[in-house]
Amino acid sequence: MEENIIFGKNAVTEALIAGREINKILISKNIHSDAKLNNIKELAKQNGVIFQFVAKEKFLPYAQYNHQGIIAQISPIQYKDLDEFLEEKHENDAVVILDGVEDSHNLGAIIRTCVCAGVAGIIIPARRNVQVNATVEKISAGAINHIPIIKVNSSVNAVQKLKNSDWWVVAADASAKDNYYDVNYKDMNFALIMGAEHAGVSKSLLKLSDFVVKIPMLKDFNSLNVSNALSAIIFETVRQKLQK
Amino acid sequence: MEENIIFGKNAVTEALIAGREINKILISKNIHSDAKLNNIKELAKQNGVIFQFVAKEKFLPYAQYNHQGIIAQISPIQYKDLDEFLEEKHENDAVVILDGVEDSHNLGAIIRTCVCAGVAGIIIPARRNVQVNATVEKISAGAINHIPIIKVNSSVNAVQKLKNSDWWVVAADASAKDNYYDVNYKDMNFALIMGAEHAGVSKSLLKLSDFVVKIPMLKDFNSLNVSNALSAIIFETVRQKLQK
Repeated sequence: MEENIIFGKNAVTEALIAGREINKILISKNIHSDAKLNNIKELAKQNGVIFQFVAKEKFLPYAQYNHQGIIAQISPIQYKDLDEFLEEKHENDAVVILDGVEDSHNLGAIIRTCVCAGVAGIIIPARRNVQVNATVEKISAGAINHIPIIKVNSSVNAVQKLKNSDWWVVAADASAKDNYYDVNYKDMNFALIMGAEHAGVSKSLLKLSDFVVKIPMLKDFNSLNVSNALSAIIFETVRQKLQK
Repeated sequence: MEENIIFGKNAVTEALIAGREINKILISKNIHSDAKLNNIKELAKQNGVIFQFVAKEKFLPYAQYNHQGIIAQISPIQYKDLDEFLEEKHENDAVVILDGVEDSHNLGAIIRTCVCAGVAGIIIPARRNVQVNATVEKISAGAINHIPIIKVNSSVNAVQKLKNSDWWVVAADASAKDNYYDVNYKDMNFALIMGAEHAGVSKSLLKLSDFVVKIPMLKDFNSLNVSNALSAIIFETVRQKLQK
């Protein structure tokens, strides 16, 4: 069930704008009409998407979601194939590889940050990592429609493929010696590996990495949320590319 | 109720280590003993804190929390007074001012990031901003015990007081002209104002700010999560202070 719905006015609006395949939109009879809802109805009409006004009881199965009385039944997102991605033209591009990120809120925030920072794709392993579910879609605030998500069976194979295609590999690890801002991210394609909040990046991936970097902590409290850690590093790469 | 409990093994452990005033710890009879739980019991004994093993039904009122079968009934956190904070010695310090942050997950992540980045204090307005509740404590992963939270009735007055004490004021706003990394954060005390996710920083605070800065977006999608936006900016200030 969870993989096939998105909820909330903003997420449904973004999915419609992005032309996502939507089977049906359910709107609670109990919600008030407003500009956002009218916009959704208009977009649905333009895209030939059916919407129905239903009794609030229809939303009981979705009680765990903050759905605001609106749900779209969608086709699961289309994951991108890594080989296909690598065949496209890349110049000073970044991809983010997630290694064991378990929390839907974190994945949603990571997707938003990656889109804002112009990241070309996000690679997630098919196992031991949260997948794109309804909560991720909601938290991503529509960003999911603006970046390819590449699902891979083996992160190690994926990193090997990237290296074979001349991508540099940077892993973020709290025990690294080098600081993230001492790497030069300009003039290369690079992959940034972010690990699980507690376990960090797995050893097999650290071995394959060209750089292992840490975020220096100013207090003896080393426990940055993974999306916040990613944000600090990825916007440093943006700064290096843009600052005059 | 919500303000007076913390839950989950890590949050309870951190509260004990920090010496927070705890009335009682409730542990479900149904949870398995492990190293973390033994550590909690040991710390509780050392600190003279009562713990009780109770039937799982006792946890029903807390069903909305991911409590892992452990809850500590605590005194509300001690907010710090701004005048008192300003009387202390500050040298190249940062404070973060939140202006309308509504989400508990965001505040929890912000607190963690601020502690890691050595921020001296977080100022939150008493109204129109999420307060430190049980979810915030949990998401902060104990960080709440390592940084003063300063509650103020008026953000405008707070900023005026900071300015009168020679603090510089930087506001983050998506419509700013300058990029955040073009400000020099070294050799000064500064306050960084982060706004609500949708409305941004209020006009009255923007007017008082010495710098208004944005995070440049590489895609036409301007919707960074507030904790991720803060992380990008605050670690840039850390980079400026540390990088040789």
